[in-house]
Amino acid sequence: MFGAIEAGGTKFVCAVSDEELKIFERVSFPTTTPEEVLEKIFEFFDTYNDIKAIGIGSFGPIDIVEKSPTYGYITTTPKKGWNNFNFLGKMKEHYNIPIGWTTDVNAACLGEYEVGGAVDNDSCLYLTIGTGIGGGAIFNGNFIGGFGHPEMGHILIKKHPQDDFEGVCPYHGDCLEGLASGPSIEKRYGVKAQELETDHKIWEILASYLAQACVSYTLILRPEKIIIGGGVMHQPQILDLVKEQFTTLLAKYVEVPDADSYIVTPTLGDNAGITGGLLLAKNSL
Amino acid sequence: MFGAIEAGGTKFVCAVSDEELKIFERVSFPTTTPEEVLEKIFEFFDTYNDIKAIGIGSFGPIDIVEKSPTYGYITTTPKKGWNNFNFLGKMKEHYNIPIGWTTDVNAACLGEYEVGGAVDNDSCLYLTIGTGIGGGAIFNGNFIGGFGHPEMGHILIKKHPQDDFEGVCPYHGDCLEGLASGPSIEKRYGVKAQELETDHKIWEILASYLAQACVSYTLILRPEKIIIGGGVMHQPQILDLVKEQFTTLLAKYVEVPDADSYIVTPTLGDNAGITGGLLLAKNSL
Ligand SMILES: Nc1ncnc2c1ncn2[C@@H]1O[C@H](COP(=O)(O)OP(=O)(O)O)[C@@H](O)[C@H]1O
Ligand SMILES: Nc1ncnc2c1ncn2[C@@H]1O[C@H](COP(=O)(O)OP(=O)(O)O)[C@@H](O)[C@H]1O
Ligand SMILES: [Zn+2]
Ligand SMILES: [Zn+2]
Repeated sequence: MFGAIEAGGTKFVCAVSDEELKIFERVSFPTTTPEEVLEKIFEFFDTYNDIKAIGIGSFGPIDIVEKSPTYGYITTTPKKGWNNFNFLGKMKEHYNIPIGWTTDVNAACLGEYEVGGAVDNDSCLYLTIGTGIGGGAIFNGNFIGGFGHPEMGHILIKKHPQDDFEGVCPYHGDCLEGLASGPSIEKRYGVKAQELETDHKIWEILASYLAQACVSYTLILRPEKIIIGGGVMHQPQILDLVKEQFTTLLAKYVEVPDADSYIVTPTLGDNAGITGGLLLAKNSL
Repeated sequence: MFGAIEAGGTKFVCAVSDEELKIFERVSFPTTTPEEVLEKIFEFFDTYNDIKAIGIGSFGPIDIVEKSPTYGYITTTPKKGWNNFNFLGKMKEHYNIPIGWTTDVNAACLGEYEVGGAVDNDSCLYLTIGTGIGGGAIFNGNFIGGFGHPEMGHILIKKHPQDDFEGVCPYHGDCLEGLASGPSIEKRYGVKAQELETDHKIWEILASYLAQACVSYTLILRPEKIIIGGGVMHQPQILDLVKEQFTTLLAKYVEVPDADSYIVTPTLGDNAGITGGLLLAKNSL
């Protein structure tokens, strides 16, 4: 039996599965204080006594460098109460089993890589466009990262000529996350992204930013597949616009698979993260 | 005994070393036609009969995907005569020994990683600023790449407000290579880069482009070190300007090592590539 935690800035999801990763119970609760959240986590997993390992995919930034003294911490998050929180440590105090630990997007990437859309590939990159923008990548079974985990959502991009928005990233203003996250759309128009019409000009603008990001990821990493998930991608028109603009921007400079199989949405849908958590648990044995 | 080839678009370097990688002979000749070049390569290595393996770091784009039918080819280069040239195949026809094959920048990266400035690191990225701009990266001993090798020199960057140059990249115009390679400087001012004064405003502009690139590489890969070599970096003032602008741009968003140990020039200097070739040979055994 495996356990998984998808630790998001808005909500937590916990699940338990059998050895074939078939989920048989799942709960979800809002991300309040670490104390309250831990209590709910313990309450959920404590009802099982044969969990072999747990995998955690967490919002960040987190420390994933094993030799670091703050390994397992959520580090510099602006989220109240969670700054410098030893999440993995608290879990290990309570459960004496292997616990896998990585970012939320790395976990989702692992889900797609092992049992989702990239199951036939040796590498893939997973990007989420939601409240924030984040990405993770796997090459030959290993997560990309070194001095820490990637923060692919904060890359610099060029402003679209029809966009004069200053961006919402508290660090950089108009980085990718600042210009293309859900909240950036809400701040521009005063309504939630899901309330705008499907032919609103913002989708074209957003797609141009995502296409630029895909070009950078492609030139730097050359993954075999780019998978884009997250709430904003529930707008089905975006994907085609991204593929179109990506193809134009890349100008055939490097070979990529056919755009339709290269830039895709997650096969596992919103389950990519929790599935990845279960795989993390399994792989930690 | 090991052999190495640094295959550049302007010149080729061949070397042989002992098992400790101590080079005892080296030749260099211009990159004319593949036939002429091959003849010179054979002439050089044929005088030795105990070479155990050869490593090749080549200008590109090249095919490094082992399962590909054109593995070992120089592929879509605009360089006359070299397009679609089966370089590795020709070498293997002549030498029945293991031959390592990767990009010139991957080879240089390997040199720095194993015996140069990154010898104490688990990852590093090598960037060259010369006739073109190219990069390679190693994480835990493996080169980054999947569907092909990286083309980090062609990423999109933001134009500096004091730069109205349209760029020299034949594919993208004003990508990084288009705006920051040696020829881009020459095209702007009509003289070779090395002829401009050290306090010319171009170095500040160039540094802003390289700093942007370092930010993208950092956010996407999180290497432990970024090593920047190539002819243009012989201007000693550039490195400090890059570090300064990098620190400002990154805005402390992710943790990086102290800038002085993070962004550096190659410890092996212009020998990084050929040393990497010898290491490739050694590793191919
Ligand atoms: N159908 C939709 N179209 C556009 N945006 C959406 C849609 N559904 C959700 N969003 C936006 O996605 C963001 C939430 O992303 P999500 O991935 O669900 O959560 P989180 O990033 O917090 O984990 C919000 O900004 C929301 O407005
Ligand atoms: N001291 C220098 N200052 C600035 N630019 C230089 C200097 N030396 C060489 N260059 C430039 O570097 C480029 C050649 O780069 P190099 O790395 O030597 O060769 P290549 O990229 O062809 O392998 C040329 O554009 C040249 O003008
Ligand atoms: Zn940002
Ligand atoms: Zn280019």
